[in-house]
Amino acid sequence: MSRLIAVDWGSSSFRAYLVESTGKLLDTIKSDQGIFNLTRDDIETCFKSQCASWLDKFPQAGVLMSGMVGSRNGLKETQYLPTPCSAKTISLALESVELFDRSVKIVPGLCFIEDEKTSDVMRGEEVQILGAVNKLSNDCELICLPGTHSKWAVVEDGKIRRFSTFASGEMYSTLLSLDLFKGIIFSKSFDKESFQKGLDASFQTAGFLNSIFSGRVKLLSGELDDIHLSSYLSGVIIGYEILSATKIYSSNSKVVIVGSHYLQELYTLAFSHFNIESFCLEPDTTYVSGIYSLAKQNNYF
Amino acid sequence: MSRLIAVDWGSSSFRAYLVESTGKLLDTIKSDQGIFNLTRDDIETCFKSQCASWLDKFPQAGVLMSGMVGSRNGLKETQYLPTPCSAKTISLALESVELFDRSVKIVPGLCFIEDEKTSDVMRGEEVQILGAVNKLSNDCELICLPGTHSKWAVVEDGKIRRFSTFASGEMYSTLLSLDLFKGIIFSKSFDKESFQKGLDASFQTAGFLNSIFSGRVKLLSGELDDIHLSSYLSGVIIGYEILSATKIYSSNSKVVIVGSHYLQELYTLAFSHFNIESFCLEPDTTYVSGIYSLAKQNNYF
Repeated sequence: MSRLIAVDWGSSSFRAYLVESTGKLLDTIKSDQGIFNLTRDDIETCFKSQCASWLDKFPQAGVLMSGMVGSRNGLKETQYLPTPCSAKTISLALESVELFDRSVKIVPGLCFIEDEKTSDVMRGEEVQILGAVNKLSNDCELICLPGTHSKWAVVEDGKIRRFSTFASGEMYSTLLSLDLFKGIIFSKSFDKESFQKGLDASFQTAGFLNSIFSGRVKLLSGELDDIHLSSYLSGVIIGYEILSATKIYSSNSKVVIVGSHYLQELYTLAFSHFNIESFCLEPDTTYVSGIYSLAKQNNYF
Repeated sequence: MSRLIAVDWGSSSFRAYLVESTGKLLDTIKSDQGIFNLTRDDIETCFKSQCASWLDKFPQAGVLMSGMVGSRNGLKETQYLPTPCSAKTISLALESVELFDRSVKIVPGLCFIEDEKTSDVMRGEEVQILGAVNKLSNDCELICLPGTHSKWAVVEDGKIRRFSTFASGEMYSTLLSLDLFKGIIFSKSFDKESFQKGLDASFQTAGFLNSIFSGRVKLLSGELDDIHLSSYLSGVIIGYEILSATKIYSSNSKVVIVGSHYLQELYTLAFSHFNIESFCLEPDTTYVSGIYSLAKQNNYF
């Protein structure tokens, strides 16, 4: 029975999946060897060593990769396909690359262009979005993928119509190093009440640059404990992301969250705080569902 | 004739002014010895050495300080006076501190409390705001003090009514170090067109976290040159600050800008881009005007 080796290779992580011709996930390999600090040769070596046992056992397996591996720092810079875009359209645009003696194909990125001022790009997240669509009974949904660069996307008639990126995860890491909060004790432990205070602060009219400063004001006034500052700032950022996204994507349906267990918990709490219905999809099987539909369309099986 | 030694001592800068009893500015001393990295002893030593010639020449001169010197890391932690607040109210709340053999007083900070969710603080900027009020013919104006933590304030009947802080300068320094822009060439030279593109991007509905990411999208699409990224991000931040502030402070009058020459130029350009009338006040003489009115009220002269 034929196999597919699917690789979700981002800037900071490597995730490989061994998939059966039925679409069943057989095995998973994960590491933090992202594309970011690898040379072209490193990428080849890394893939070979990480997936050695699969490659030995299934010499005929097709290889399908997505994510930053398709950027200019990856194996080959693939195009950005314009939305609206279905699994079929994307599967027809897979790009081949020579990687030792294997037939390897890379999923292109997507771009959304509304007008001169509004445009966006993604590379990798489209596979999880397609997977989410496969798993949903209602076709028209709002999908949220929280992370370093959170993506929100609307899917209609099986097509990714529109999406937006929010640099939330990166902003969170950065805020903790601001002079504004220098010398203040941080705690990694999560405090729900402070997180919710942050969510509320994000909805103030004075906007994001003011909401950040409010962290300092609340510390000075004793409204916030210094060990809860990180939870508060996390609430400000996530609240602000949800506020901005729901302005663009007003949806009557539930929001579908696809992300790590930790982020799913935070976002579920935030949606619930704002009385927005949401539910979670497990990210690995969602990815596999998406990449499998691309492989099927492209006659991998 | 008696003299006043006025010190505007912030986190990262020291500015001292020798003022005549008429309010005339006689001499200025500036250094980058901010409060941030000084101990209590360092602060005393720094003041003595920086102002040695004035202290020798005018042993009877009163000393009035403002800014972070009144914080818990400064000479003495002074209170935050609640707004609305006039020069008279503030002058009655000056706090004395023993500094060698001099009578030294420190200007308190201000706090604005609207409700449980909205409050703000300032320490130092209130002096420039009072100075701006002295210099204006129209009493009711919107005042903008751009900087690391930009302040916007509304003054009515000679009283500081309300103010808001935007962590704009700090956000700008931080954005340039994001992974999002890692390895991308930056230029310190200013590009007007890219700055204006950033101003326009800040007004998009998707909000700040999306506008930042748009810098990367515009680089990928070739809409923005990598050497102009810093000008673009500066436009996004300043545009976003103005957008947020004008939502709170809708004003039919001109906006008064008090800031460094460089920031005055940037903000003037931004206001003009948004068809908002503005004009600039020179920061040193504005500070001296404010501190002089406090000294007069407190019977320094």
